[in-house]
Amino acid sequence: MTDRVPVLAIGDVLLVSIQTDLEDQMVLNLQEDLSDRVTSTGARGVIIDISALEIVDSFVGRMLATVASICSLLGARTVVVGMRPAVAMTLVELGLSLDGVHTALNLEQGIVYLRRAWGPSSAPR
Amino acid sequence: MTDRVPVLAIGDVLLVSIQTDLEDQMVLNLQEDLSDRVTSTGARGVIIDISALEIVDSFVGRMLATVASICSLLGARTVVVGMRPAVAMTLVELGLSLDGVHTALNLEQGIVYLRRAWGPSSAPR
Repeated sequence: MTDRVPVLAIGDVLLVSIQTDLEDQMVLNLQEDLSDRVTSTGARGVIIDISALEIVDSFVGRMLATVASICSLLGARTVVVGMRPAVAMTLVELGLSLDGVHTALNLEQGIVYLRRAWGPSSAPR
Repeated sequence: MTDRVPVLAIGDVLLVSIQTDLEDQMVLNLQEDLSDRVTSTGARGVIIDISALEIVDSFVGRMLATVASICSLLGARTVVVGMRPAVAMTLVELGLSLDGVHTALNLEQGIVYLRRAWGPSSAPR
């Protein structure tokens, strides 16, 4: 297996499903792949699904915030979806607030959020 | 990490992105999760993305065919998307034909195929 997380495209949304514990190189690859794809496709939204993650620590939290900031500079909004209830509880207990990262319950809610954020004039492609 | 592949939902399509080499238990879990989700959501389409897979052997091929057959019995069509060119070449060289499995270039083409297969009367939800 490669140490890259695949980036899928649905219309003008890019979708990343994180399924393994991320190591440093994978995070760097993901940042590179995502920014390349946002640039080449003109995607306006990025959805990161973390439903497979049982642990979200400060490293993962920082990674999500960094990816969101990079995509934001390139004109794409990022939504993190699929967080498990136990993960949310742990994050709050630890005082990790995922600053600058928008979250939604699941993939569908993430798409709804993006459509709303783009405004009524932005018809989905 | 759990040994389960997350199943995402987009409208009436379920999406599975396979990113790790599948072992027997993961395949069984995936079959169970997918059939549960098809049943509970009434999904009419299942898209399996294998763009992260560098090797598709007869085991994976059989798994894909089995999943497609199960979903078909439950009323959902399955499309396998994202196959790498090298994987396609190897499959043909090995004489593995992925019988009964419909394939499409990528996620978007897979959705297009499903919409067509459902016919004009089936508006997307």
